[in-house]
Amino acid sequence: MDLRLHNFFRSSTSTRVRAALNLKGLPYEYVPYVLRDGETRTPAYLGRNPQGLVPTLERGDGVNLTQSLAIIEWLDEVQPEPPLLPRDPDDRAWVRSLSYMIACEIHPLNNLRVLFRLCDQFGADDEAQKEWFTHWVSLTFDALEDALAKDPRSGRCCFGDTPTMADVCLYAQVWNNRRFAIPLDRWPTIRTIFEHLETLPAFAKAAPPRQPDAA
Amino acid sequence: MDLRLHNFFRSSTSTRVRAALNLKGLPYEYVPYVLRDGETRTPAYLGRNPQGLVPTLERGDGVNLTQSLAIIEWLDEVQPEPPLLPRDPDDRAWVRSLSYMIACEIHPLNNLRVLFRLCDQFGADDEAQKEWFTHWVSLTFDALEDALAKDPRSGRCCFGDTPTMADVCLYAQVWNNRRFAIPLDRWPTIRTIFEHLETLPAFAKAAPPRQPDAA
Repeated sequence: MDLRLHNFFRSSTSTRVRAALNLKGLPYEYVPYVLRDGETRTPAYLGRNPQGLVPTLERGDGVNLTQSLAIIEWLDEVQPEPPLLPRDPDDRAWVRSLSYMIACEIHPLNNLRVLFRLCDQFGADDEAQKEWFTHWVSLTFDALEDALAKDPRSGRCCFGDTPTMADVCLYAQVWNNRRFAIPLDRWPTIRTIFEHLETLPAFAKAAPPRQPDAA
Repeated sequence: MDLRLHNFFRSSTSTRVRAALNLKGLPYEYVPYVLRDGETRTPAYLGRNPQGLVPTLERGDGVNLTQSLAIIEWLDEVQPEPPLLPRDPDDRAWVRSLSYMIACEIHPLNNLRVLFRLCDQFGADDEAQKEWFTHWVSLTFDALEDALAKDPRSGRCCFGDTPTMADVCLYAQVWNNRRFAIPLDRWPTIRTIFEHLETLPAFAKAAPPRQPDAA
């Protein structure tokens, strides 16, 4: 496949897709955008992605795929090996639920445009933004820790010993947490899984500081 | 299937699952919770759903499924007819991306616990909450309107003329918008699709005011 990833090194949703592409062994051209400079708000980019968000996965046939989890599900459908979701429907529901805990309950509340909005509408300074960010991470990571610690399907990864979509989301979120230096001590299962993922080249290569546009 | 839906009439994610169950023709027992009274924070409920959120779909075999989109994907896998996602991977990616625009970019920012947090942390009054809520709806509905208006796959529903997961999300979000009386005039394609969905019994039966716990 001829793939170009329109993304930003520090974007958590971009990190998810980079890790998924790496896990699938699919090479891609890296196209960086500077979000603060409005580079995703140009007419050309909005033509690819009407939300003006990263990432967008552009295929050689001109189709642009948007929304990180839709891209990851698509990758898993068109290139099933190695799988990013288990085969059994109950297990798939479990892995998706872990993924959405992060993708629907943490990240949407803590991304850059939300922090900007808190500043614009409520005058939230760095300290208030950190409090907000930490609140949502903690609320859901407490529940995720509980879920992962209790479920017998947890292993070195969120589901067994091979990475799934849930690990992709967890890995990206832990990196995102570093914006406000949130320590992982309170969530030992999450920490252990993250540390394992860091040893895997597909994840390590997707880490924000390893990207060409990292300062 | 023996199904119990732990939910709340006004919850947007609950509305999604009710509509999906109705579309699949699956009956379920309705178990209502009063969120403001902390009924989802009890040890018994947290045992089903460690996040203390609605909905949870409890099966007769004791398995509890959480996260509305994980439940809907599971339903589509175990009971494929009528499908809630198209068959072609590109089309599936499209329908999922429309779904996630709502599920990851609007709803997480506007649910009740976020409005409470804005009040607690920033003293946001009703007017400020409305401004926040409307901002996130408008930002994403503008992009969704653009996407739906331009894509040749749009029909009476978000994808063609039969309902998919995207319609389930759209329908629930438009109902949620009524909390702050947001008119749909600015988004004619979304409005037309919503009005069509309202004529379908599976959706109409899922509407918040039609539920047993509606005041």
